[in-house]
Amino acid sequence: MLPFSTLLPINKASAMPVYQQIANGLIGLIRDGVIKPGASLPGSREMAQLLQVHRKTIVAAYQELFTQDWITTIPRKGVIVSERLPEIKPRTFKAAAKIPAYAGNTGFTFNKIGSYPGAPARPGEHRLIINDGFPDYRIGPVDLLIREYRSLFHSPAVKHYAAYGGMAGPLSLRNELTQFLTETRGLNIGPQNVLLTHGAQMAIYIAARLILQPGATVLVGEPNYFMADMIFQQFGAKLVRIPLDENGIDVDAIARICRQKKPALLYIIPHHHHPTTVTLSADRRMKLLELIRRYRLPVIEDDYDYDFHYSGGPILPLASADHEGNVIYIGSLAKSLATFVRVGYMIAPEHFINEAALMRRMIDIRSDNLLEEALAVLFRNGDMQRHLKKSVKLYHDRRNHFCNLLEQELKGIVQFQQPAGGMAVWAQFHKKHPLPAISARAAAKGLLISNGSAYSYGTVNHNALRMGFASLNEKEQQEAIAILKTVV
Amino acid sequence: MLPFSTLLPINKASAMPVYQQIANGLIGLIRDGVIKPGASLPGSREMAQLLQVHRKTIVAAYQELFTQDWITTIPRKGVIVSERLPEIKPRTFKAAAKIPAYAGNTGFTFNKIGSYPGAPARPGEHRLIINDGFPDYRIGPVDLLIREYRSLFHSPAVKHYAAYGGMAGPLSLRNELTQFLTETRGLNIGPQNVLLTHGAQMAIYIAARLILQPGATVLVGEPNYFMADMIFQQFGAKLVRIPLDENGIDVDAIARICRQKKPALLYIIPHHHHPTTVTLSADRRMKLLELIRRYRLPVIEDDYDYDFHYSGGPILPLASADHEGNVIYIGSLAKSLATFVRVGYMIAPEHFINEAALMRRMIDIRSDNLLEEALAVLFRNGDMQRHLKKSVKLYHDRRNHFCNLLEQELKGIVQFQQPAGGMAVWAQFHKKHPLPAISARAAAKGLLISNGSAYSYGTVNHNALRMGFASLNEKEQQEAIAILKTVV
Repeated sequence: MLPFSTLLPINKASAMPVYQQIANGLIGLIRDGVIKPGASLPGSREMAQLLQVHRKTIVAAYQELFTQDWITTIPRKGVIVSERLPEIKPRTFKAAAKIPAYAGNTGFTFNKIGSYPGAPARPGEHRLIINDGFPDYRIGPVDLLIREYRSLFHSPAVKHYAAYGGMAGPLSLRNELTQFLTETRGLNIGPQNVLLTHGAQMAIYIAARLILQPGATVLVGEPNYFMADMIFQQFGAKLVRIPLDENGIDVDAIARICRQKKPALLYIIPHHHHPTTVTLSADRRMKLLELIRRYRLPVIEDDYDYDFHYSGGPILPLASADHEGNVIYIGSLAKSLATFVRVGYMIAPEHFINEAALMRRMIDIRSDNLLEEALAVLFRNGDMQRHLKKSVKLYHDRRNHFCNLLEQELKGIVQFQQPAGGMAVWAQFHKKHPLPAISARAAAKGLLISNGSAYSYGTVNHNALRMGFASLNEKEQQEAIAILKTVV
Repeated sequence: MLPFSTLLPINKASAMPVYQQIANGLIGLIRDGVIKPGASLPGSREMAQLLQVHRKTIVAAYQELFTQDWITTIPRKGVIVSERLPEIKPRTFKAAAKIPAYAGNTGFTFNKIGSYPGAPARPGEHRLIINDGFPDYRIGPVDLLIREYRSLFHSPAVKHYAAYGGMAGPLSLRNELTQFLTETRGLNIGPQNVLLTHGAQMAIYIAARLILQPGATVLVGEPNYFMADMIFQQFGAKLVRIPLDENGIDVDAIARICRQKKPALLYIIPHHHHPTTVTLSADRRMKLLELIRRYRLPVIEDDYDYDFHYSGGPILPLASADHEGNVIYIGSLAKSLATFVRVGYMIAPEHFINEAALMRRMIDIRSDNLLEEALAVLFRNGDMQRHLKKSVKLYHDRRNHFCNLLEQELKGIVQFQQPAGGMAVWAQFHKKHPLPAISARAAAKGLLISNGSAYSYGTVNHNALRMGFASLNEKEQQEAIAILKTVV
């Protein structure tokens, strides 16, 4: 006989009646295979003795099991566990909740994805946050976006938005983007060249999935946007790091590699490179375009904050020149409004977009198309365009103010080049001031700032970070730098 | 000399001045490498003759190029293309827009993802839509959700929501889900076992990415949710299809396969299987759990509409029993509110969740965490729970009404089993009535209905589709079936 007194612990202090505890315990034992279908259970008198309870309690427990079809009573054989088991009903949830099936590791081994080069920041009690280079959600038409969203939800068209995923995203927003990208970037495209994604990161992942094979060589900057590196590596690619200077990536180094063996992919951020913010010079662009055409070199051009350029006009993307279909162009609307507005896009030849749309569906079957439709309305009415114009002016001032503060308050501690655009300064701290210590001490004073680990590769310790200036007004910038000054 | 008259077509009818057309044309030729840096351009008099324009026009064009730093004038050598090229400035956008770099195919070859077994429905002028089994967005607290979203946007906490992505999603919603899943499904988990995803599809993709190697064997139902099939296949897995009957998947067939060689993964939808809506019986569940434990068989349990069960209480998921960490449990909130509310989740041991969170970041760096925080508020206040209770009652009535209509109006044409839960009926049309024709004729009468192609595999033509009843009220159901009746 099973050791029922051990298997069926009773808690008389519990709010659950004892008979119910016993019934649930028995169901658990049956379900877990400890008691098999067809097995006999002790009679009510015997079980009462084993569990040190009144016989009426056992009778009630058995009655419960009988009602739920877990047991049958056969004359002269006693209580038998049903051969055909009943559905497991909600009333047994408390029993199920005892099984710690998720407490340990998996029963099987699984693939490791990689390691994250620095834990992401955790929410805390920080008064101030120096982020990676995010927009200021306070200055944009987020309220308007929410209003449009709500109004679309109450429109008759919502019937269609709720039913259809659409392969590449709603045509309305793809049309608006086509026009916007043509006007601002000189791209010569139609909506068939646009895939909407849940942020630019997804567009990079999808493009890499279509381009790479395991063992492929991918050229990236040194340093590079680390989440792109991780994508390429988890697809089994080998990264070759190309040096950068104040004019951007070293195109001659790319040419030398191409002459030896054509790489599978070049990932490039020509406009305000992430993390260093340098911009690829015009002559290097020309040379690079020539290489791209000559070698049919697949390129992902990540142009995540093209719209924010302060020193002169922005530089046209590679995608706007003649690249013979080799440049996959990626951008984001999250950078224009707020990080939580998750809409990115990929521009590519139609055949590539079709395949990419299938991949998008596979990893993310549909978007919040009400949100995408609402964004299309904001473009159509010119609200986005007006907002961008306003932000460029404001961020320009904030960049100047922030760089002046760095220059005045942290001279000799922080080295940086004023970026021509974007939302962050690439700030290299002097070796005497290691960032992990600064970050910890700043946190204690209510300022959240990266410890720089995300920008260090292998043995290279840049002791640097991106300091986002766009999301802080001048007063906040002053407070943040004042805290930094006290902790270095 | 270059054939300038061909290379620089002039349109005198254009709104753009001719000198500007010539300047832009020359910039295009320089940028595309047709004219090299250091090359001489014809003098203004000569160029004027070549292009059949007034000399003053050429002087103006060269002046524009000079201002933009494209050319220099060297005494006695004439007009020379700059050795160091200027930044490509916005005023040359119109020229760039002529380059059809995205009109053809890519310059390189790329991976194919697979083929979609039936184009997704396209928005049209349909008055009525029979969808795949979606909720009725009209009955849920979507307005409340939007209000909470807006209120969070105006709260001081938005500073943190805008800054942090969080590895597995906001703790608030993971806590609420932990409690909700424990109460409704008997899962014994903590927030460390919960990963939020942008819909359940993403959770399936991520779980498959962690579990599968190329060449792996995956067991799936025949038929199966086709977007899951596509995920496994694009990871290089081999699908083995297991028959289904009215009691769900054939567990004995799974046992036979396990005895020969352990498969890498079993993908199962035990509760209202997609597409057929059958539910795995209790005895098969018991057998399956035994197999899972014995073979340490990795399982993805897709329980996308657990909350909607009408005939008796819902059946507890495999994940709530003792599976020794082998069952990865996946669900969705999109099914509870509206398809455009994109929040799904994965439940797994903590180590698996950590790796899965990294993968999630890689394909989709952050969620709309304002939305996730707003959903957490709806759970905390009991709004979601009240809404679910109400929907189950309403969908129960709608299922009965819809099945009665099918029975009465389409007898002999449609064969189906009344589903015990979920939002759709698996309807097999008689071979005499091929669905593609029905779908086309219905569309002409304002009713959108699938042509069934998504549920046909290889040579198997089920001539069946899922008919979503939950999103249609009784009047709409009557109208839809009336249209169907006239077109079969």
